[in-house]
Amino acid sequence: MPLVHLVTTASGLGRVESGEIALLDTPFPHLGAALEQLGTLAGLDVYPVRGRVPLGEVDLLAPLGTPRAVWGVGLNYRSKAEHTGRALPSEPILYLGAPSAVLAPGSPVVIPAGQTLEMDYEGEIAVLVGRRLYQAAPEDVWPSVAGITAANDMTARDVMRTTSAPTLAKSFPGFNPLGASVCTPDEFADPDCIRVRTWVNDELRQDDTSAGMIFPVADLLSRISWFAALEPGDVVLTGTPAGTGQDRQCFLAVGDTIRIEVGPVLPLVTTVQAPPGDGHERPVLAEHAR
Amino acid sequence: MPLVHLVTTASGLGRVESGEIALLDTPFPHLGAALEQLGTLAGLDVYPVRGRVPLGEVDLLAPLGTPRAVWGVGLNYRSKAEHTGRALPSEPILYLGAPSAVLAPGSPVVIPAGQTLEMDYEGEIAVLVGRRLYQAAPEDVWPSVAGITAANDMTARDVMRTTSAPTLAKSFPGFNPLGASVCTPDEFADPDCIRVRTWVNDELRQDDTSAGMIFPVADLLSRISWFAALEPGDVVLTGTPAGTGQDRQCFLAVGDTIRIEVGPVLPLVTTVQAPPGDGHERPVLAEHAR
Repeated sequence: MPLVHLVTTASGLGRVESGEIALLDTPFPHLGAALEQLGTLAGLDVYPVRGRVPLGEVDLLAPLGTPRAVWGVGLNYRSKAEHTGRALPSEPILYLGAPSAVLAPGSPVVIPAGQTLEMDYEGEIAVLVGRRLYQAAPEDVWPSVAGITAANDMTARDVMRTTSAPTLAKSFPGFNPLGASVCTPDEFADPDCIRVRTWVNDELRQDDTSAGMIFPVADLLSRISWFAALEPGDVVLTGTPAGTGQDRQCFLAVGDTIRIEVGPVLPLVTTVQAPPGDGHERPVLAEHAR
Repeated sequence: MPLVHLVTTASGLGRVESGEIALLDTPFPHLGAALEQLGTLAGLDVYPVRGRVPLGEVDLLAPLGTPRAVWGVGLNYRSKAEHTGRALPSEPILYLGAPSAVLAPGSPVVIPAGQTLEMDYEGEIAVLVGRRLYQAAPEDVWPSVAGITAANDMTARDVMRTTSAPTLAKSFPGFNPLGASVCTPDEFADPDCIRVRTWVNDELRQDDTSAGMIFPVADLLSRISWFAALEPGDVVLTGTPAGTGQDRQCFLAVGDTIRIEVGPVLPLVTTVQAPPGDGHERPVLAEHAR
C-alpha cells in the first residue's frame, strides 16, 4: 500500500499520490479543522477527489492552519545532552510557543529586524493530536495521535540567553515552519524510531531517530497531559537532536536554506530572508488558512 | 449613551441592553471569530437584532471561544511587589497559557485530581487584541485593542513551586475563566486606570487599578510584540494585584465562589468543584463554541 501523505493547499485539502495531489472535496480549510471535527485523519477517506494537480504546481500551506497550543520541550535527545555535556533532565522542560510563529512549508522566514544575531534551526518531529488527552497514561497516547509532520523549531539563541524564556526566543513570526505533509502514525514502521535529519545548504547537520529521545513521544505527551489538556489539532514539538548551529557556534544567515526530513514526510524547506528596510513588513504566514 | 457589553451565548453573539441580551444575527460563533474577521467589535453594529432574552436566562460562553495565544505576565502590580517584598522587574516575566484552560463565565472549575493542594485565584484585566501588533510602539497599542474583559488566571501554587513554570501551573482545564462580557476600550473613562476587584465567598480580597501596573497595558503589549506577533483574538492577561491566596497562605477549597469585577464588565463568577471520583471527567469548557 502506498504511503498516505495529507497536505493543506491553497485549493483545500489534498492527498499526495504518485507525484500528484488529489484535491479532496471537504468543508475543511486545513487539516487542523479536520482534526477538530473528526478527531482523526483517517476520516478524510470518505471525501471524494475533485481534481488532481501536479505536486509542485500548488502552494502548500501550514498543514494545521494556525494551531492553538504548540508545545515544545527543551533537551529531549541523548545526543544533544551528550554533545552539550548537560545532565539528562528528570522532568521534561516544557513550554508553549506562539501560534503566530507558524510558517507554511517553502515560505521564507524573515530575520526579525534588530532582534537577533543568532538565529538557529532545530529539526524536530511534530506530533499532531487527534483526540483529547488529559491525565492520560503513556499507553493511551499513540491511539490519540492523528499525525506526524516535520517542524523547524527555530530559536534566537541570544534572546534565549538574555531572557531564559523559550517562549520568547522561539515565537518570532515564521520561527515555526511546519509540514510539508502529514503522515498518520501507522505509516511509520516503528513510530518510536522515526528518523529526523536536517540539512543546511545541502550539508547534513542533524541525523538521529526518536529512539534517542529522553522522553519518548508517549511519555512526553502523557506528562504534558498531567498539567494541561491536549486538544484535537494541538501540536507537540518533541525536541531536537545534536547538530544545531548552537552546537557549532555557527548561526543562520540570509540566503541559507534549511531542509528537514522526518521519516517519509515530504521535506520541510525554509529559506532565510533579510529583514525588510522598514523592519515592519511581514513574512508569508499561514493565517489566510485560519 | 449606555455602556456596550458584548457577550457570547449558546444562541450566538449578543449585546447586553437594560438587563436583556439583544441577540445579533451574525455568522460568528463567538467574539473571537468576529475579531478575526472584523478586527474590531464596533463592526458588530451593522448586524440586526434577531431577538431578546432576559439576562440570566441564557448561558454565557467564554467570549472568544477557545483563543489561540493567551499571554500572561508575572508580578505586574506595585501592590503585589510591595506585599511580597520582591524587587520591581526591569522586564516583564512573560509566558503563554494553554488555550484549553479557558472556562466559560459561571462554569465550575474542577480541582485537578491529585494535582494540586494550593489552587489560587488571580483577578486580572484581560486585553483582547483586535488588530495585529508586531514590533509595535506603545502608542500603537490601544488603537489595536478591541476589548477588555475579566480573567481569573488561576494558579496551582505548589505546581509553580516545583516546576517554576507558569505555563504548567496555570494550564489545567478550567484554570482560565474569562468574561462575563466584553467592553470596548472607549467604555472606560480612563483605560489606564481600570479597577479590578476579587471577592472570595463575598469577602473582598483584591482591589486595585491598572494605574498600579509596573508595565501598563500599552507598554506590556508593545514589549510582547517585540518577540511575537499578537494576532486578532489573542488575549493578554495583564497581571494580578496584591491579595491572592498566596499572599495570605490560604487556598481555594471545594464550594468556594470567586467573583471578579473589572470596571463595568459583567462579573466573572467561578465556583470550585471537587474532582470526580475517577479523576478523568472534564469541566464544562468553552469548546462547543470553537
